[in-house]
Amino acid sequence: MSNTFGKLFRLTSFGESHGKAIGGVIDGCPSGIAIDEEYIQSQLDRRRPGQSDITTSRNEADKVEFLSGIFEGKTTGAPIAFVIWNADQHSNDYNNLKDVFRPSHADYTYQTKYGIRDHRGGGRTSARETINRVVAGAIARLALQELGIEIAAFTSQVGIIKLPKSYEHYNIADAEKNEIRCPDPVTAERMIELVRQVKAEGDTIGGIITCVAKGVPAGWGEPIYYKLHAILGNAMLSINACKGFEYGSGFDVSHKGSQLNDEFTTEKGKVTTKTNNSGGLQGGISNGQDIYFRVAFKPVATILKEQNTIDKEGNASTIKAKGRHDPCVLPRAVPIVEAMAAITLFDMYLLSKTNTK
Amino acid sequence: MSNTFGKLFRLTSFGESHGKAIGGVIDGCPSGIAIDEEYIQSQLDRRRPGQSDITTSRNEADKVEFLSGIFEGKTTGAPIAFVIWNADQHSNDYNNLKDVFRPSHADYTYQTKYGIRDHRGGGRTSARETINRVVAGAIARLALQELGIEIAAFTSQVGIIKLPKSYEHYNIADAEKNEIRCPDPVTAERMIELVRQVKAEGDTIGGIITCVAKGVPAGWGEPIYYKLHAILGNAMLSINACKGFEYGSGFDVSHKGSQLNDEFTTEKGKVTTKTNNSGGLQGGISNGQDIYFRVAFKPVATILKEQNTIDKEGNASTIKAKGRHDPCVLPRAVPIVEAMAAITLFDMYLLSKTNTK
Amino acid sequence: MSNTFGKLFRLTSFGESHGKAIGGVIDGCPSGIAIDEEYIQSQLDRRRPGQSDITTSRNEADKVEFLSGIFEGKTTGAPIAFVIWNADQHSNDYNNLKDVFRPSHADYTYQTKYGIRDHRGGGRTSARETINRVVAGAIARLALQELGIEIAAFTSQVGIIKLPKSYEHYNIADAEKNEIRCPDPVTAERMIELVRQVKAEGDTIGGIITCVAKGVPAGWGEPIYYKLHAILGNAMLSINACKGFEYGSGFDVSHKGSQLNDEFTTEKGKVTTKTNNSGGLQGGISNGQDIYFRVAFKPVATILKEQNTIDKEGNASTIKAKGRHDPCVLPRAVPIVEAMAAITLFDMYLLSKTNTK
Amino acid sequence: MSNTFGKLFRLTSFGESHGKAIGGVIDGCPSGIAIDEEYIQSQLDRRRPGQSDITTSRNEADKVEFLSGIFEGKTTGAPIAFVIWNADQHSNDYNNLKDVFRPSHADYTYQTKYGIRDHRGGGRTSARETINRVVAGAIARLALQELGIEIAAFTSQVGIIKLPKSYEHYNIADAEKNEIRCPDPVTAERMIELVRQVKAEGDTIGGIITCVAKGVPAGWGEPIYYKLHAILGNAMLSINACKGFEYGSGFDVSHKGSQLNDEFTTEKGKVTTKTNNSGGLQGGISNGQDIYFRVAFKPVATILKEQNTIDKEGNASTIKAKGRHDPCVLPRAVPIVEAMAAITLFDMYLLSKTNTK
Repeated sequence: MSNTFGKLFRLTSFGESHGKAIGGVIDGCPSGIAIDEEYIQSQLDRRRPGQSDITTSRNEADKVEFLSGIFEGKTTGAPIAFVIWNADQHSNDYNNLKDVFRPSHADYTYQTKYGIRDHRGGGRTSARETINRVVAGAIARLALQELGIEIAAFTSQVGIIKLPKSYEHYNIADAEKNEIRCPDPVTAERMIELVRQVKAEGDTIGGIITCVAKGVPAGWGEPIYYKLHAILGNAMLSINACKGFEYGSGFDVSHKGSQLNDEFTTEKGKVTTKTNNSGGLQGGISNGQDIYFRVAFKPVATILKEQNTIDKEGNASTIKAKGRHDPCVLPRAVPIVEAMAAITLFDMYLLSKTNTK
Repeated sequence: MSNTFGKLFRLTSFGESHGKAIGGVIDGCPSGIAIDEEYIQSQLDRRRPGQSDITTSRNEADKVEFLSGIFEGKTTGAPIAFVIWNADQHSNDYNNLKDVFRPSHADYTYQTKYGIRDHRGGGRTSARETINRVVAGAIARLALQELGIEIAAFTSQVGIIKLPKSYEHYNIADAEKNEIRCPDPVTAERMIELVRQVKAEGDTIGGIITCVAKGVPAGWGEPIYYKLHAILGNAMLSINACKGFEYGSGFDVSHKGSQLNDEFTTEKGKVTTKTNNSGGLQGGISNGQDIYFRVAFKPVATILKEQNTIDKEGNASTIKAKGRHDPCVLPRAVPIVEAMAAITLFDMYLLSKTNTK
Repeated sequence: MSNTFGKLFRLTSFGESHGKAIGGVIDGCPSGIAIDEEYIQSQLDRRRPGQSDITTSRNEADKVEFLSGIFEGKTTGAPIAFVIWNADQHSNDYNNLKDVFRPSHADYTYQTKYGIRDHRGGGRTSARETINRVVAGAIARLALQELGIEIAAFTSQVGIIKLPKSYEHYNIADAEKNEIRCPDPVTAERMIELVRQVKAEGDTIGGIITCVAKGVPAGWGEPIYYKLHAILGNAMLSINACKGFEYGSGFDVSHKGSQLNDEFTTEKGKVTTKTNNSGGLQGGISNGQDIYFRVAFKPVATILKEQNTIDKEGNASTIKAKGRHDPCVLPRAVPIVEAMAAITLFDMYLLSKTNTK
Repeated sequence: MSNTFGKLFRLTSFGESHGKAIGGVIDGCPSGIAIDEEYIQSQLDRRRPGQSDITTSRNEADKVEFLSGIFEGKTTGAPIAFVIWNADQHSNDYNNLKDVFRPSHADYTYQTKYGIRDHRGGGRTSARETINRVVAGAIARLALQELGIEIAAFTSQVGIIKLPKSYEHYNIADAEKNEIRCPDPVTAERMIELVRQVKAEGDTIGGIITCVAKGVPAGWGEPIYYKLHAILGNAMLSINACKGFEYGSGFDVSHKGSQLNDEFTTEKGKVTTKTNNSGGLQGGISNGQDIYFRVAFKPVATILKEQNTIDKEGNASTIKAKGRHDPCVLPRAVPIVEAMAAITLFDMYLLSKTNTK
């Protein structure tokens, strides 16, 4: 089940970077959801390469084609299959990768595990696979929007340049106004500058994405091993280049219990908490407050500098990437983080329907 | 499947803190594994309360009783069921929790989700559930040890007190020599002092546990959504009080790709990498280097200070914990982190048997 | 997952015939179901050995003990664990089975598969495992009864003695009035006579159980591979000694489409069909009519006659069962068939909650 | 997971009869299996409509196109996606089905379950979905053939015309020599005559398919709920129009235990049984003998005669099928039965790799 995500709303993903197509099948999607194909495409456009001068210059249209499960504009409950045909492949750019292992890529581990690999464009290990997540996530978001739930992510750190305040201090929608997807224009400018500088060096840089889900009612999430934050963690860590996940107070362990505990109170007759260090989750179940979490991404492993490595036979070799690559994955990863959050939340919604008699 | 963890080696957990028993069933355990019950009990003893003056003074023997799946000292391939009978219950300590929601606990979310909850001792949300993980983890470790794999965790941060260097600079086994389970005696002393001080205040403190798995061969881990680090993340984040997970370079995003990439080389004819910022994992699959990761734990939510909250009817109320509680979960969480790592790794081993024809 | 049945309402089973206990864990049971322990025990009593002179004379009380998941008489949504302690074990009766394979038993296949087996009383392969199904089935039935659904099974054939008419011609409740559980007293008498005769010979006999579920609304069952009848088939075929499953017109393929098709009509404003050759299921989904199916059981493999076989080393040997065995499993299998039907139906109910937005 | 079959070798199916395409994704296929596309197409050709005058005259090429998971002629361990583009659609033939429920079809149950359905050509409920099973089954068979396992099915009964003897008395390969796929030419001729006669009446007829798997070693199959025969039953009962499944002695319950038990013996040093009433399976695990089972199919529900029914509003109506339909599914179902058997067996093979340490 390694290429399937979700328990009830399940995405099965397929496709290699330079194969015929990338695509997926969503099984378990309830019937009756209105499918807005323009919205779905707009999410793919946020992820697509070539959208700005700080992403790869590969120019892929990434148009999604649905093959099943939708009838007269609505989901039918049948599996929703979709494909995105591959194009603009410069497979020859990858010929030198056939027998040499790129440092910090998955070439060596796939070769060792399977004894065979499609090396062209990274094959199955390419981040092109994340297209599928964005398609499925967009469908989940359409369903969640009907339930009053909004998900938004943004770039909160690039290298050492951090957004100075926590998410409540910004209008997250502003993140879409600049190439790095940071809601603060001043910080955004500094981040973009850093990416340009790193790009000029033929190097790459990582960073952190923050994601917020608003409107999730109390009661979603499944104890013990399918806690909402544990599956969000699984979801995020499954994204290419992701190295860490934290929610609420996360890795900031400097405070005491009495400082961090979120006291309950009521506001206009509704239960709420005075603070939200829990990140909207207690015991793995949503408590009605904002769910927020942060996701760390390493720098893209593909750099335009010469590196030492070995070939399949174990001989010392060097490698220097050709091709068109991202100096920083963050701006394109923002819609992917949102998509995985949407898939996870919608699955938890469906599961929550079965908790009581 | 929320109370089941794993794909092939699967632990199903049951039990409430003040119910008759805590226990579990392991399905999918291969036959022929020698079961050393003393070893299993020794792991439980590392987790048990009352083991030192910086853990809760509850004194529970936590003796495991196996009910099935073992014959003449070996696993048979049949499900291994086990129970740990509950004792030393001071249920009356929890009477005040029946109708009041403890801040940053799961009382409110369980009540909202299920409309009913066993409030005694936290019921199903109690960290007593983690006993089951330690039992299953001990069996997985026995199997992994036969494959030459060793897993060891330790406390690397309590509050703001950090272990100054990375894990390679210590003898991890030394962590067992002090109550806080930190391999550096000087740092350990400072951590213990901090916990004692926090305890004296009726307060609690969190921290970070680092875990290292040595000897994992290249090729374990399943792309795309069941990446080894993504499932380790799921596993760790499912532990009570866990707020974050990172592996390899993790949230340290200050470096460039050229600084972080792990160049391949060979050493005595064996493939290795010059550095290990990948944390032993590339594309979600082990590369033969040490797998290491860090897990953040918040302070225990139960404090002996008065806090504001609400009751079931939404009326303002206050709460002040009675009972015996941990001022810091770290030392007792160390064997739990190891156990979840072992369950995850052994499951990945079994899956890896099916990757090639 | 081989010891787990169900997708949302999931029974995980454990235990060997002569081990400490038989038991199970039910995960995914919704909260709020009233647990009538007397009812559950009454179902176990229908399955228990020693209930009449045509069942085995082993006398086992088979009292169920719940360990978790129930609070103040209701399910909480947490896993429901239960055990039935083993007693009245005559393990010595099985000493001769340690090294010899009983014909048409699972001794040889388990030994080959796992390289080790608990031979005492058949170990994990004993039909004693079906106790767990009856407990879980009873809980599912309590929940289904609240939804207006009743499940009833009966013995419709023993050897060549068949119930002459289809189920609608009998009051199924009458089946509980005789030892063989056949609703027609005349046929029941002939069946009982046959079983007594076979028992006197030290031999065994098989037969067929018919099961009917009334009150299932239209819309339960999941296409394509989890069709309601396909999972009922899986459920029934997983019962010890089961050799076949059919529903509706089943193996009677003598009629043409025009003769078998169930024409739709309305009755008092409700959709119904004029006939029910579909067995209440079309495209794997319930249509609101009675669901009915038939299950074939072979004769118990353990006979008190000498048989040829081989031992572990492949040497020719003979075997003659000692111990107390059933001459015919049918009467005790009736509650097991009902239980598996209940588990399947309740799982389908929970799944059906997630089909529409 | 209702559109996914298998635990490790998993087929996820999608597509409607008159949508863009039918297809599937196989996840969990081991790397290194040589993919013979001609062989796969030859299996599709055995299933395709229009192959003889006793199947539907629809003429669909049903060419499979692989999208991923295969590199240089071999599986890579990545998901194998494939599509079969729909063509030759006479959707107008189905316009009259939009608002009227065909008797014994799934129109009513899908409409009730989902509140929406693609009625064209039966939409998701069309047997066209079985194309996917044949593709996945062909890949499983290629893998099984490397392990020395052969699977063959044939028509053993049409209406009341039965093959007189059990399978050992025929050369099963002869079944491919006639349109009905029965290995005995005399019986085949009588069956074909019956189908022609039924077709001339605008009616349909059902029957039974027998399937045999040779070469399966002892030890495949997972107790308790994933017994090999229970999953074969699930697999077969999931095929459109299937009404029953039996293996070994099945529904023939006329014999006593002493007559049916399969005594063990050795032949040339290899364990074997003198008889095979167990159908090659004991305790749900293969014993090394031939695995054989029988599958019952009802007559196709679509007939060219007028039938009474109701429309969506519950008004009485009549229906008379137009279009091109099969008078008997048996010949085209033979490769589908084989395919589902292959998928099941290969999955059990992969699982069996994980049974021992």
